[in-house]
Formats: sequence, C-alpha cells, structure tokens
Amino acid sequence: MAQKPSIPKGTRDFNPEQVAKRNYIFDTIRGAFKIFGFQPIETPSFENSSTLMGKYGDEGDRLIFKILNSGDYLSKANEQAYSEKDSTKLTSSISEKALRYDLTVPFARYVVQRQNEIEFPFKRYQIQPVWRADRPQKGRFREFFQCDADVVGSKSLWQEVEFIQLYDAVFSALKLEGITIKINNRKILSGIAEVIGASDKLIDFTVALDKLDKIGDEKVKEEMRSKGISDDGISKLQPLFALSGSFNSQIENLKGILNTSEAGKKGIEELEFINNAINELGLSTAALELDVTLARGLNYYTGAIFEVAAPKTVKMGSIGGGGRYDDLTGIFGLNDVSGVGISFGLDRIYLVLDELGLFPETVTNNVEVLFINFGEKEALFSLKAIKQLRSHGINTELYPDAAKMKKQMNYANKRNIPFVILVGEEEINSKKYTLKNMQSGVQAKISIDELIHKLK
Amino acid sequence: MAQKPSIPKGTRDFNPEQVAKRNYIFDTIRGAFKIFGFQPIETPSFENSSTLMGKYGDEGDRLIFKILNSGDYLSKANEQAYSEKDSTKLTSSISEKALRYDLTVPFARYVVQRQNEIEFPFKRYQIQPVWRADRPQKGRFREFFQCDADVVGSKSLWQEVEFIQLYDAVFSALKLEGITIKINNRKILSGIAEVIGASDKLIDFTVALDKLDKIGDEKVKEEMRSKGISDDGISKLQPLFALSGSFNSQIENLKGILNTSEAGKKGIEELEFINNAINELGLSTAALELDVTLARGLNYYTGAIFEVAAPKTVKMGSIGGGGRYDDLTGIFGLNDVSGVGISFGLDRIYLVLDELGLFPETVTNNVEVLFINFGEKEALFSLKAIKQLRSHGINTELYPDAAKMKKQMNYANKRNIPFVILVGEEEINSKKYTLKNMQSGVQAKISIDELIHKLK
Repeated sequence: MAQKPSIPKGTRDFNPEQVAKRNYIFDTIRGAFKIFGFQPIETPSFENSSTLMGKYGDEGDRLIFKILNSGDYLSKANEQAYSEKDSTKLTSSISEKALRYDLTVPFARYVVQRQNEIEFPFKRYQIQPVWRADRPQKGRFREFFQCDADVVGSKSLWQEVEFIQLYDAVFSALKLEGITIKINNRKILSGIAEVIGASDKLIDFTVALDKLDKIGDEKVKEEMRSKGISDDGISKLQPLFALSGSFNSQIENLKGILNTSEAGKKGIEELEFINNAINELGLSTAALELDVTLARGLNYYTGAIFEVAAPKTVKMGSIGGGGRYDDLTGIFGLNDVSGVGISFGLDRIYLVLDELGLFPETVTNNVEVLFINFGEKEALFSLKAIKQLRSHGINTELYPDAAKMKKQMNYANKRNIPFVILVGEEEINSKKYTLKNMQSGVQAKISIDELIHKLK
Repeated sequence: MAQKPSIPKGTRDFNPEQVAKRNYIFDTIRGAFKIFGFQPIETPSFENSSTLMGKYGDEGDRLIFKILNSGDYLSKANEQAYSEKDSTKLTSSISEKALRYDLTVPFARYVVQRQNEIEFPFKRYQIQPVWRADRPQKGRFREFFQCDADVVGSKSLWQEVEFIQLYDAVFSALKLEGITIKINNRKILSGIAEVIGASDKLIDFTVALDKLDKIGDEKVKEEMRSKGISDDGISKLQPLFALSGSFNSQIENLKGILNTSEAGKKGIEELEFINNAINELGLSTAALELDVTLARGLNYYTGAIFEVAAPKTVKMGSIGGGGRYDDLTGIFGLNDVSGVGISFGLDRIYLVLDELGLFPETVTNNVEVLFINFGEKEALFSLKAIKQLRSHGINTELYPDAAKMKKQMNYANKRNIPFVILVGEEEINSKKYTLKNMQSGVQAKISIDELIHKLK
C-alpha cells in the first residue's frame, strides 16, 4: 500500500538551496574556528543514557530522546514499573541510549575519557546536530545544529578576549554588520546579590533583573519583593536600574555599588581587563556592550557571560552565546578544569541573513553550464568537452535524454543554470560550441579553450 | 557521584586528526558531486517509523533504532501486547519514530513528498550518518556516514557512464590509483536464470554464482544442484564459469549463452553501450571490468549493478557500490520513476588511504604558528600581530597563559605546530618578531610583513 509520506513534527528536510545556504554559514564559522586555532572533534549521535540524564535538570531529562533497546527489550523491564505502568520509572530499564541534547556534555565526557591523550589547553570546535523533544514552534526544532568552540584547561582571560574577536570575525565575514556582543560576569551578579543580602536568592534575583527591558523597573522591584528580597536591598539596587551609557561609565557605577563585595570586585576587574584589551585590539564590525542584566545559563557559568544580539533592524532573539564554567568535567570525575566557550545559533543566523538579503548570489549557483542533448553521437561528443570543463573545476551537466529542445531549455531555466551549450552536426564538424547566455539570450560560437577560459 | 565515562558500543568519537582526515574524503567526494552537477539535500535523522519499517526486510526492521515516545508513553501502549509482554508487538504503540537506516528510503520519501517542486531529472547527493543496530565488529559500526549520489527521472544510460566517470574522478583525486569498477546488469542475471530454466530461483542461483571466486566451480554447481537447479541447466552454464578476459570477449561469450533471452540480450546491449562510451572517453586511474557474478542488492536493482574494489595490494571489501532501480518511489505511491545511483564507503576508504599512506600531510596541519606568552604586555602586543596574521588566513594561536617557556614549547611540539614566535621586551621595541622553526630549531628576527609573507 502506498503511504502518503511526511516527516516527524519539529524536523525538516533541506532542499538544495537551503543546504547551500546553511553550508555557507557552516563553512564561514568553521573557517574562523580554524584560523583561531580550534581543532574539530565529533562525538556519537547517541550516548549512554547515564552520560546525559541528570545533567540538564528535570525538564531537560524529559526533553531527551530515548532510544528503545533492541531485541526483546521487555525481558529486562523493571517489573515493578511494568506492573504499575509507570512510564517514567520504566524507561531506564528498556532504554540504555539517548540522543545527544547538546554538545557540551558530550564534550565534557570526551575530555574526561581522553584526558591522557589531550594536550591542554584544549581548543576544540564541534559542529553537529542535537535533538530535543521540545514543543515545536516557529524557529524551534526537534533537530538542529549547534556550532560550539570551547577552550578547557586554562583560566586565562585572553580567551574571553579571543572569543569576542572570534564573534566579530565570523559575523564580519558573513557581512552581518552591526551585531552587539553583550557581556556580563557571573561574579557581578553574585556580588550584587551579596550586597543586597540576597545571596541565597541569586536565581530569583537575576530572573527578575533579566526582565528589566521588558517590564520596567517598578515591576522588577515588585517581583523581587514577592520573592522575599528586602526593601532595603532593593533600594541599594537603584543605581543598577539607571545603569546605561558607555562600558566604562557602567563599570564606574558598579564599582560604587560593589565596593564591599570581593566577588563583585573580581568581576569588575575581569570585565575591565577584557574591555581594555578589546579597545586596544579593535573590532571590525561588532560592538561590545556591558549588560548587567545578562544572566543566561546562570547555573552553569562562573565567570564571563556572552550573548550576541542581531542588528537592531531585525527582530530576533540572541544569535549566539556562551561563557566561562569552572567545573564542567567534575560531573565525570575530573575536577578543576576551567573552560570557556561560545556557540553560534545557526537557524537564527540563517533567518537574519535571509531577511537582510546577505547570502551571496553565488552560494546557490550549482551548475554553471548544461549541454543540450541532441542524440547519441552529439552526447558522446559533448561528454568529451564536459570532461575537460570538469577537470578545470567547472560544474557541468549533460541533459541525460535527447528530449525536446524546449523541455531541456526549460530545465536549465528552472534550475537557474546560467549557460547552455548546443552541440549539433555543425558543431561537431567545426569543433566550435554554441554557447547561449540564458539571461541575455545571446549566442556565440567558441572553441573549447575559449569556453574553459570564459566559464572558469 | 562521578561516573566513569564511556560511549555506546559500535559508536565512535573522532579526534581532531581523524575529523580532518574524514573531512578530506568528504570534501573530495562533495567536490566531485558538485562538478558533475549533483545538488545536495538533507533529511531528518529520524523519520516516522511507518516510512522506514517494511522497506529493508525483516532483518532490516530489527536493525532499525526506534525512538521511545515522549511523556507517558505507556498510556497508549497496545494492551494485548502489554499484557503478553510481547516486545515486537508492543513497539509500534510506544515508538512512532526511528533513526534513518540508509539514505535511499528517505530520499525516495523526499522525492514523492516534493514531486511538484522538483525539476526532473533530479540529480541529488546526500552525505549524512545512518544508524543500524547491527552487531558491532571490525569495520562495522552502529553509526556511520553514507555518501550517495542518485539521479531520478531518466532512463538514460549516459548516467551509468557518468557514474563510472564520477568514481574515477573521486578516487583519482584521492590519489587512490588502481581501483576496479566492476559492472554487471540485473538483466544478464535474469537472462541466465531464464536460459537454464531457473527464473524462479534467481536469488538462489546468484547467491551460488557469487561464491565462484571463493569456492570454485564444482562447489558452486553442487550448491545449485542442492537448490533444485537441473543438471541440464547447469551444463548450459559451463561457458559462464570460464568467463574471463577482456570486457569485449566476455560480452561475446555472453551473446552465445543468452541468444534466446530477450532480457539477456537487452542487458548485453546496455553493457556494450556503457563500455563503448567509457572506451571513447577514457578513465584517469580506474579500470572498468565486467563481472557477471556481481549480484549485490538483487532485490532492488533492475539494470546496471556497480561495485568498486580497492587496489589489489590492499585487503578490503568493496569501497563503493550502486546500480539502477526502476521503482524506488513506488513504495510511496509515485510510480515509473527510474533512478540510478552510487555510494561511497567512507570508513573503508579511510582505512585504505591510511594503510597506503595517501592522506596528504597538510590535511592534519591545524595551527601554523603559536605565539609564546611572556606576560600581559607581550600578549597584547602579540594579539595585534595575531590579528593581522589571521586576517591573511594564517591559523594562529596565542598560548593563553604566561607559563614556563618549556611548557609552552612542549605544547607546540605535541600539537605539531611548525612555527613559534617569541615576543619579549626587545621584540616590542624593535618591532621585529623572533620566529623559530620547530623542526630545524633555526631562529630568525623578522618584521610582520615578512612573517605574513613567509607563513602564507
């Protein structure tokens, strides 16, 4: 029985144009990773469930795709869970593997497993798909690529400096000008929480602060109060709500607020180091901005926090992010390995480039020239020329059938092939090829050498 | 609790050297696909189970990795299967998705789903991983890449000709000389079976014939007899066992054997067409060979059958294969779409190149130059030079910490970085950089322009 074909929700097919555009972004990112000295690794699509489970919180655990054991998997099913029909409890007894949820945990697992063969500091990049059983919605998919670069094994702040340069290099190469690299430091957030007497409420505090842009300072204060942060504490935050202006003036304000917090002062020192270096080195098209409300991945980052905003002309969430984490590999038994890394959001970058018309036209030019097929003898003659063109790196195609001329020209048009070549009796005898420009319609007879020269 | 990390059996991590070598093969194959006019598509890693199940036989169905439904999956479990604890029967009620088993079925699904937007003939390539729950063994993995190129929508034999050229182009570009492209035709096999009165035993007959090289003609005849092929039929095969020599002399022999079979005669005609065209066009480093015992994918191929053998100096199974199939998309309701395609076996090609030492040395050269870090001031000065080198496409790295000189040099050695640059007080004042060749140990002071010129 014929089936009406479809694909699972939240997944996508990519047609040739989409693949070409995605590869343009991948290649640009990969090129910059290499220039900056990062080395590629790849890890399996599925890991042992024990490697992934418990690393992303309860919600994360739920969103991990589990793979059913092969064979008679019920023979090893947890009997109690089975009799109670308890899906959650049963899972680990019928599924031992799960699809990768991000690239960070597999990277940590890799580093620990191969710690004796790795030269530290280890600068690795990884561009692979990840899977999440999230509710699909616009711009959120169940299968998507992550593009990560991380360094582990050094606490040097030069790495934060280089990651800012790396963001600038990638987005400049993509001609996406006007992005903002927002930076914050977990120690600043800890310092503020400490100063207002809410160190135990760091997450509540930052979640509220993060909404400042959206709901305004009065509502933020209200939320903080509702979470049990004292009025006295909130009043100390007043200068924070007014924070704006240049990197340096914000730093000066923070120095006033945080002068009693060691963590806070350390955070300020780190931010100043990074900002001074970037000022000395300069950025091509990006701007670096201090954003004390930036708190992404709070449970995870311990130093710098990064987030990249698209140019203001485009409505789009962050197109990149990252930060420093001091104990990534501890979960696998290797302590004191500091790391710092950034990620590029491929799907959103794609949408931004598409919206702004920034994909180079040549990206999707697949075939440069099509030879029209007039029959067996002509096709064989054509294939001899095609062999030469291809050996010069020119993407060339022979229409496989001696179909009607109109059908073949139509094919060239629909495929956006810029040139066609007509080889008939006359062309075989004269050893000249009729080249037709599909855009202008102009035809000319030229030799094989001229052809190669023109198309190359 | 710290876990001892590991990965599932049959899967692999790839370290930087391995990724670089694999990408060299991928890039070479992809480059040739493009030159020949193929366009890339990508499909999701998992498909609806109904798309995959029943397409690869019972054994294939068992080897497909199934993904457990999310949430309370037992609430929809088939009650009878559940009470009987019947794993096989239960699966479809608790798992709706499955990991792709090959690239061919998803491609067929793609073509049918998008038949109205595709220009036929559609030349597509696809390079993506597939997953099989096979018993892992040397050279057989549960996750591996396939590299496929197919054309659908034309019966033209020029495509078979071009696929032979494509194999030749890829393996020549990889400097893997001396491969053999074996060709056969399903119609030849059908014809022989017809002539010996065993049309209903085509598979038994070809399975036996396929063993000719290994077990010799007497044992092959014995096996055929045991499968019920008559002595009279087997005696007609005598010329077949003697088949050898040139393509043309084999064809002449086949003409004698198959002169009463229409299918057989058609097969001979197709093989002659392909062989004549290849003789006219020439191959760079590959040889084309007729092998009437070649029967791979018999249930599937309807015309040409291809298989590529590594050079005889290497012990290795086939490193590529393919053929023509007349009704790939019929399973999804689109009939009469003829296709022909080939595949490259990445893992085996990797092993062959590695064994023969054919990976170019430059493939794994990641970082070209490391700047030694002598402290804050020197590092900042270095980063200014590094920025310039990187903008000229030179892979450059700063050692992140002002560690002991010996440690930094050691890092450069272990990473196989060919040059290091030393920037101290003197270098900052003179604006000359000390460049050290790590192989020869020779040091020289040079300007930034000389540096760029030398390293580029």
